[in-house]
Amino acid sequence: MPVPLIALLTDFGYQDFYLGIMKGVICSLTPEANMVDLCHGIPRGDVRAASFALRHSYKYFPSRTIFLCVVDPGVGGPRRPIIVSTEHHILVGPDNGIFTGVYESEESFTVYAITSDHYFRKPVSSTFHGRDIFAPVAAWLARNIELWKFGEVIRDPVRLEKIPLRRLAEREFHGTILYTDIYGNLISNIPAGDVEKVAAQGSIPISFHIKDQLQVPFCRNYQQGPEGRVFALTGSTGFIEFAVRNGSAAAVSGARFGDTVRLVFG
Amino acid sequence: MPVPLIALLTDFGYQDFYLGIMKGVICSLTPEANMVDLCHGIPRGDVRAASFALRHSYKYFPSRTIFLCVVDPGVGGPRRPIIVSTEHHILVGPDNGIFTGVYESEESFTVYAITSDHYFRKPVSSTFHGRDIFAPVAAWLARNIELWKFGEVIRDPVRLEKIPLRRLAEREFHGTILYTDIYGNLISNIPAGDVEKVAAQGSIPISFHIKDQLQVPFCRNYQQGPEGRVFALTGSTGFIEFAVRNGSAAAVSGARFGDTVRLVFG
Amino acid sequence: MPVPLIALLTDFGYQDFYLGIMKGVICSLTPEANMVDLCHGIPRGDVRAASFALRHSYKYFPSRTIFLCVVDPGVGGPRRPIIVSTEHHILVGPDNGIFTGVYESEESFTVYAITSDHYFRKPVSSTFHGRDIFAPVAAWLARNIELWKFGEVIRDPVRLEKIPLRRLAEREFHGTILYTDIYGNLISNIPAGDVEKVAAQGSIPISFHIKDQLQVPFCRNYQQGPEGRVFALTGSTGFIEFAVRNGSAAAVSGARFGDTVRLVFG
Repeated sequence: MPVPLIALLTDFGYQDFYLGIMKGVICSLTPEANMVDLCHGIPRGDVRAASFALRHSYKYFPSRTIFLCVVDPGVGGPRRPIIVSTEHHILVGPDNGIFTGVYESEESFTVYAITSDHYFRKPVSSTFHGRDIFAPVAAWLARNIELWKFGEVIRDPVRLEKIPLRRLAEREFHGTILYTDIYGNLISNIPAGDVEKVAAQGSIPISFHIKDQLQVPFCRNYQQGPEGRVFALTGSTGFIEFAVRNGSAAAVSGARFGDTVRLVFG
Repeated sequence: MPVPLIALLTDFGYQDFYLGIMKGVICSLTPEANMVDLCHGIPRGDVRAASFALRHSYKYFPSRTIFLCVVDPGVGGPRRPIIVSTEHHILVGPDNGIFTGVYESEESFTVYAITSDHYFRKPVSSTFHGRDIFAPVAAWLARNIELWKFGEVIRDPVRLEKIPLRRLAEREFHGTILYTDIYGNLISNIPAGDVEKVAAQGSIPISFHIKDQLQVPFCRNYQQGPEGRVFALTGSTGFIEFAVRNGSAAAVSGARFGDTVRLVFG
Repeated sequence: MPVPLIALLTDFGYQDFYLGIMKGVICSLTPEANMVDLCHGIPRGDVRAASFALRHSYKYFPSRTIFLCVVDPGVGGPRRPIIVSTEHHILVGPDNGIFTGVYESEESFTVYAITSDHYFRKPVSSTFHGRDIFAPVAAWLARNIELWKFGEVIRDPVRLEKIPLRRLAEREFHGTILYTDIYGNLISNIPAGDVEKVAAQGSIPISFHIKDQLQVPFCRNYQQGPEGRVFALTGSTGFIEFAVRNGSAAAVSGARFGDTVRLVFG
């Protein structure tokens, strides 16, 4: 029997003891669980950033990993606690769209609304379901409780609105900045594959435009980028990302989440 | 035999390698120990915040957990290193008041002054007892060394001055802000139970006043709170806490640690 | 067979999911590995700070610990991925000088250039070798793959330029500030041993000068230091460090990395 793995994703940051409490709750219920911190630096209440982070990281974890995801600005309100079961993974968290990136990445998945308060910590507070619902459920899942015991299957999980990638003209595409990392790299929703193919042929010029006025070149890696100027490259997520060598593309360009990125071939 | 659990609480932050060194020391002595980060974001040298964090988190950890607590502004001075043994837990750290919240939460406990330098890392520095005394002692405790082997029982552990909760008039109570979390929530020392009882009856109006001029309502959860304004609710610690929905009560109110909170029934 | 330990050192910080991805990759390959965070707060791309942190921490970890070190501003460029094998430890990372402190601390060591892409994650990106090369190699090392299988021994690993400690006059030494920690303590490259010997004799006055104009006394511990003023003491690394009690020596003195420190005996 392998050690059950619980990966934790929250917006708790690192200043307080809330994350420690959740870990204590898990250790109390399932001492043999192996907890791994996926990320706790999601901006407060930013469900979209959490969905993005999860989408681009969960597939690197082993089969049967349980993801405990607590970015939960609606705690205490009507949003449901849910379990998402995919081919290889199990995810636990609020039904607020945090699993949108997972839904979009999977061919099929099942979602359960958690209703069996048998598995909750009592009394359930109205402000910290991470401690009282999600962590206990993750700990029980790590003990191989069957999913249907937690509640009924639902067909209408909440999804965040899809951020579009549009074709605007013959050779022009409009994408969007989806994430800014700690280095100031700006990650877009433009898949890098097609751009790389065109770049490999070398016959058609490629240019990117962010913040409208800024035209930036496409480079192969950070080392190839010009000093002090923004350039585009294939990021580790497989999407086009904007960077400044030893600097911050976010700071240099002023671009941020939601801004449009234009890609022009030719 | 269960895996021994060591929970770590420090003010080391996350920038430096000091925490990593303590973990290396523990792994070297007791490789089978299971380390869990409780919190390392305690403000530098803030023994009161550490006591508060510990008080509100240690009971969520399993029986026999060893808490390694290093918020130690007096390192190298005369303050004693101690072990606190409660019914279910063991805590190791400096005798500077950091365990006050534990003392106040337990019916009985025993405190040992650590004097057996047999269990220390040598040479013992005068600046990093986390590495040289507390981590090694925690690692040895995880190997089930009996407590009396570390030193003598003491009867006079240092306690922080109790922050009072006073009844000022017939239906007026004065409490204090004890902790501000990363979300800007302000946690007071007013127990929420009585307030909830009165609120449930609904016959007597309840109001809170912080920073004197500010009157704030009592709400059930974050969702119920008014937009952009401070409200009171039952926090996850079981005490009254002040919040702003998707905002910071600390920023909006200007209140902070030590400020008085007035609760008025009627 | 002991549990293989992997200690992680990066400049990834705690905001993003990159560290979580590396941990997922390791868990996928070697589920029984025990991961310990050494430090992820190295300033972005600061190979010198990483070398310093590693030098002063790796010996506290048990024999056979594998250090996964990713401070890698040259990712995607020509710098080699390497494995360093010392008497007790194994280190994996880029050949950019990050292991300089290890080389200087060991009597002998062997360095392998990693070329067997059999052990890499495919496809190898040009921006995240932590995920695609270093983490997989560390995970395989934790499964006791022999070192020679990863590549050839090299004799010319990159070393950072040595920061000198010079004798300027009969009783005067010039050292350098090498590291500023989160408390604002300034750590120099002046070994504390000799200073302590002279201080113990008490016959010769000792003075330190930082930022030229500032003369600071030598104290035994933080408690002995004057209020609000910079003093020198023996830091936990065994080198002279400058501190302000309950304050920041960096802020009070204005000194920082690279600044000269003068030590005068008599």
